[in-house]
Amino acid sequence: MTTIADVAKYTGLSRATVSRVINNYPHVSEQKRELVRQAMMELGYYPNSAAQSLRNQKTGIVAVLVPRLTNPFFTSIIEGLEVIAEKNNLQLLICQTKASKQKELSFLKLLKTKQVDGLIFTAIENEWSKIEPYVDCGPIILCNEYQDDATVPMIKLDQYNGSYMGTKHLIERGYKKIAFCGGGSESGLSLDRKKGFLAALSEAGIKGEDKWMFPFVYNIGDGKKVMKEILAMDDRPTAVFTSSDEVAAGIIKEAKDNNLTVPEDIAVIGFDDQAIAQIIEPEMTTIYQPSEEIGRVTMEVMIELLNNKAQSKMKMIYELPINLVIRKST
Amino acid sequence: MTTIADVAKYTGLSRATVSRVINNYPHVSEQKRELVRQAMMELGYYPNSAAQSLRNQKTGIVAVLVPRLTNPFFTSIIEGLEVIAEKNNLQLLICQTKASKQKELSFLKLLKTKQVDGLIFTAIENEWSKIEPYVDCGPIILCNEYQDDATVPMIKLDQYNGSYMGTKHLIERGYKKIAFCGGGSESGLSLDRKKGFLAALSEAGIKGEDKWMFPFVYNIGDGKKVMKEILAMDDRPTAVFTSSDEVAAGIIKEAKDNNLTVPEDIAVIGFDDQAIAQIIEPEMTTIYQPSEEIGRVTMEVMIELLNNKAQSKMKMIYELPINLVIRKST
Repeated sequence: MTTIADVAKYTGLSRATVSRVINNYPHVSEQKRELVRQAMMELGYYPNSAAQSLRNQKTGIVAVLVPRLTNPFFTSIIEGLEVIAEKNNLQLLICQTKASKQKELSFLKLLKTKQVDGLIFTAIENEWSKIEPYVDCGPIILCNEYQDDATVPMIKLDQYNGSYMGTKHLIERGYKKIAFCGGGSESGLSLDRKKGFLAALSEAGIKGEDKWMFPFVYNIGDGKKVMKEILAMDDRPTAVFTSSDEVAAGIIKEAKDNNLTVPEDIAVIGFDDQAIAQIIEPEMTTIYQPSEEIGRVTMEVMIELLNNKAQSKMKMIYELPINLVIRKST
Repeated sequence: MTTIADVAKYTGLSRATVSRVINNYPHVSEQKRELVRQAMMELGYYPNSAAQSLRNQKTGIVAVLVPRLTNPFFTSIIEGLEVIAEKNNLQLLICQTKASKQKELSFLKLLKTKQVDGLIFTAIENEWSKIEPYVDCGPIILCNEYQDDATVPMIKLDQYNGSYMGTKHLIERGYKKIAFCGGGSESGLSLDRKKGFLAALSEAGIKGEDKWMFPFVYNIGDGKKVMKEILAMDDRPTAVFTSSDEVAAGIIKEAKDNNLTVPEDIAVIGFDDQAIAQIIEPEMTTIYQPSEEIGRVTMEVMIELLNNKAQSKMKMIYELPINLVIRKST
């Protein structure tokens, strides 16, 4: 634990001077003030009053970590974050991790070095234990993604129920041979989607087939590849549950290019309800995720944390609902 | 012009001490070094040797300003930037301006406060005279967007020829009543696209009709609105030239929803060649823009500037070609 004495020793100034700087008293030169502030940062000295003083030096910037910007789901979350940020004179710094653990950690340093006031994760690559040490550097929020052991506010969607509803819809339409395309990571979000899918199957007495489970599937190109694999199978599924509209669009496109009819030959359900879901033919049945709304709620919580109106080092879960949108691909 | 004497006076240290810090000599405490570095930054003192010393304190971060992330064209540029940045251990900070002049200027301050090493514009909102003062703060590059009076490297695509080719293609297919959807700003890019369009019409002896010119049209929703306006006209165009695949997708979707056939009733040409161009039916004729490539080239130039292997305060233009991709919407 760093004390005023440590700061005094480090700067070569008297304890009285350090104390005057911390309490923002007059008659201290700007050079000395700067020296003390630098030393406090370097030594990690933040008593209440000093925290108060540092708090006034806010950057007005909040960092947002996204895995990849080419997925409209994440840019839509950013739209929501931005609406509320703008009203509160905050700016967003958007950091693309490309799902790299190392990149994620280096962006976290922006919080440690006070280059940003707060940080929002829309996906998490590292284990929580690696992120935990940064919780002391400023408010951190998990938006969309979540982890059981995280000790910060989480704003999430009801992923389990989303995939349960989607799968149940396929079963109600008479499909029994259902494939699953997912993200494949061990995050709370991915696990819950898979659980929801398997729960709906199990409820209907259907056994999930391993050969029809496709992990690590994310974009249009991946969707096309999945359909190619399905076409090569002797025993093909008659419906595909996907974790993104982009994947579903790739599957539908590849199916049509191979003279299959959707949904007669193969039904496909998306996830997100992006613009592409209504542009494609047939228009896509999908799970609507309120991506802009989750962004808005997240930024509102962030602003409360920045204004110290809420406790940031505490597990809090805000859950928003998710809906099934029935169109013509199922 | 700030001198060593100014730094000495500001810090309360002797000129000899300041000089020792600048030249990185031993026997100076870390506190004094920090004090001098802070003062140099605040006073804007950068002699050659000091610049050398400061250069070692790079952040390893390059800011990228984009108007909106929901347009895949910009996220694709970012993909290209990222590939080269990663190879060179640089990180990108992506700043969404939402086409706001004020936001653009506040992001520029990141360069002034040395929070980033360099800055890339993919669109420009302010006049060049407002941006010019920041040129001294670090390397700035214009990528995609360009302005005649800018005095920095510009990596651009041949927009004039792109829209000329697209329009000529429509004319060759027999269309004479051609509408134009554009961005509407006074940037070099927007002006060149309009010029190319009008040049192709003029060459074929066709007069452009003001009533068929649609400015400030950017996304799928805008495209749908344009088609609604066209449907309400007594004298309708038989083809539409657009400045983005998203706009073209909105037009095609709205046309089909109103029982028009594309291209028989109305031909539509996109711009970009995004994924949506091949997902929609009919597949879209469009102008391919090498968005990832322009990103890669831009970051290569940025790295030369950061390593002082090229002069950053100099107008330099790199122009990449652009191609017509003929599919089924024309």
